[in-house]
Amino acid sequence: MKFLEIYRKDIQEALSQFFDEQVPHLFPINRWGKDVVERLKEFSLSGKLIRGALILFAEEMFAGKYTANAIKAAVSMELFQSGLLIHDDIMDQDTKRRGKTTIFYQYAELAKNISENEQTAYHFGESMGICVGDIAFFLGFENLSSLEVSPSTHNKIYNTFAREMSFVGLGQMQDIFFSLTDEGLSENTILSIYLYKTSRYTFSLPLMIGALLGGAKKHAIACLETIGENIGIIFQIKDDELGIFGDEKIVGKPIGSDIQENKKTLYFWYLQRYSNDEEKQKLSNIFGKSTITAKDVAFVHDLIKKYDIQNTIYQKQTGLAQLVKDEILSLPVAENYHKALLELLDYNLSRNF
Amino acid sequence: MKFLEIYRKDIQEALSQFFDEQVPHLFPINRWGKDVVERLKEFSLSGKLIRGALILFAEEMFAGKYTANAIKAAVSMELFQSGLLIHDDIMDQDTKRRGKTTIFYQYAELAKNISENEQTAYHFGESMGICVGDIAFFLGFENLSSLEVSPSTHNKIYNTFAREMSFVGLGQMQDIFFSLTDEGLSENTILSIYLYKTSRYTFSLPLMIGALLGGAKKHAIACLETIGENIGIIFQIKDDELGIFGDEKIVGKPIGSDIQENKKTLYFWYLQRYSNDEEKQKLSNIFGKSTITAKDVAFVHDLIKKYDIQNTIYQKQTGLAQLVKDEILSLPVAENYHKALLELLDYNLSRNF
Repeated sequence: MKFLEIYRKDIQEALSQFFDEQVPHLFPINRWGKDVVERLKEFSLSGKLIRGALILFAEEMFAGKYTANAIKAAVSMELFQSGLLIHDDIMDQDTKRRGKTTIFYQYAELAKNISENEQTAYHFGESMGICVGDIAFFLGFENLSSLEVSPSTHNKIYNTFAREMSFVGLGQMQDIFFSLTDEGLSENTILSIYLYKTSRYTFSLPLMIGALLGGAKKHAIACLETIGENIGIIFQIKDDELGIFGDEKIVGKPIGSDIQENKKTLYFWYLQRYSNDEEKQKLSNIFGKSTITAKDVAFVHDLIKKYDIQNTIYQKQTGLAQLVKDEILSLPVAENYHKALLELLDYNLSRNF
Repeated sequence: MKFLEIYRKDIQEALSQFFDEQVPHLFPINRWGKDVVERLKEFSLSGKLIRGALILFAEEMFAGKYTANAIKAAVSMELFQSGLLIHDDIMDQDTKRRGKTTIFYQYAELAKNISENEQTAYHFGESMGICVGDIAFFLGFENLSSLEVSPSTHNKIYNTFAREMSFVGLGQMQDIFFSLTDEGLSENTILSIYLYKTSRYTFSLPLMIGALLGGAKKHAIACLETIGENIGIIFQIKDDELGIFGDEKIVGKPIGSDIQENKKTLYFWYLQRYSNDEEKQKLSNIFGKSTITAKDVAFVHDLIKKYDIQNTIYQKQTGLAQLVKDEILSLPVAENYHKALLELLDYNLSRNF
């Protein structure tokens, strides 16, 4: 998403400044004040800052330029994102993210120097991680109070952030539930997890926040909401494709990693739906297996081919992409922004990493 | 705290109404929308609602009556409290609270019907509990956006809540840390945990929020902040006393429960400080023991007597109480509110449950 690159630097700077200048009031509380700020700073700055960038982009789209308000909102957006990821890593029991030790596991390792009981150390890490995630949320909301906008816009921004974050929580719960069981799983439940965990939060929310700051009309905001939802689903489907077919060297995670993690993707769903009993049995032995072989992956790939699942999913993507194009062209903004949004769409349709 | 009773009913009603009327927009998201709202409603309503009541009381103190704004803020306060307790129970691995199954453990039990692996079920409960706690926070912030106050008051209220919640997180981290090790523990670190985990959050925060809503001047708000801090410390010291000496039938938890949990109280601290090596050794065998006997408790009680620790702590309380009294009498409010605050102080000095 090259056109978003130009916004990153300002967000990086503002995030750094936030951690260096806005939150040192936490330092005197106790030893964890500085500790949390330092860890959150490193963690937040190592992200791609796409969500924050979309806020700046959307404000600019309607106001002709982006302002300090969009940058502030982007800082909160990235703090919320950090909080969610920190809690996610506890839930997924992930000890690594972006090649670095996850926050909760940093604390687990710290505890290992103190306690010999590994379970105690791990639980200490989880507990500290819950607190740090919570603090990231609180800092995000605190930071929003310094926006310089009209009271009604201010309220809408608080409201939009808070409401959408509740939706993410519910999407996450649904995702956790279907990691436990397949009962009641359907194409719609999978799409709904995509919608609330990824699409709306990663695309609709920042686009709406930026548009609110840029003074966009209700209709335009609703239009961006839909664009975000559908681009997000396209993004997630592509993510699933890469999780099954992606080249390890480019994607950065082992080929077939989603198979190993038994992720409930559309591919998983169609495989379940089309396979015969014998194939289903084999699939259930492969999905979620602790070490999957190249042969396992090949079996899954062959079945996807046999039932033309890739094509079924491409068609779904193409249909969504057409919807998004129409919505983009109906947006009351300058042509170069139409172009940028179409670029965003194309990127999500064609990326291979 | 009898004088707070009169505010409870309005908060109960408003909380019920909030769950019944404000959040059904969560229902269509997925099956967890209704599930979370129902569990949060039951959980929040089973609390004592003291923090919410203090908001109404403080607004009334300055405005002569309490308004819908104080009630709304009280609803958010109790939602924040629910979120914190839900996360706390995960950290403390508590399966019961107020005689009922804790939220995270409700989900663990639900998972036991699906997965045979007990560890998987427990972790499922933890993950769902993290999400529900997060959602409680988000709902609390969302609800604040509907306050009908001036923009500057609105900002101050957001800011005060968010900032204080970060402090609670840091206090909690410190508390978790000292459950792992005694290294670096001091009287001041113990008092600082009391201050940020309990005092400021339970007393200063709601008093300040109510005062802000009631249009109090800066000086009066600062005065209430101090009153809250000191009443809170008195409250917590009393809590510790009951945790060591309290009558099980009245307090509701087994006598010596704080000894069993190895809680880092002022009693613990003075025992460590005054005991000789032999006594210290015995103490370290008793504190944190999985089942403590009447003899263990008697040994601790005897040591407390031997070193006159109860008296040392009483003197500390008395000093704080005198400070609070002076602050209360300097508050620019009607005399009946002085009386009510003094009653709050006396209650915390003398309660035996």
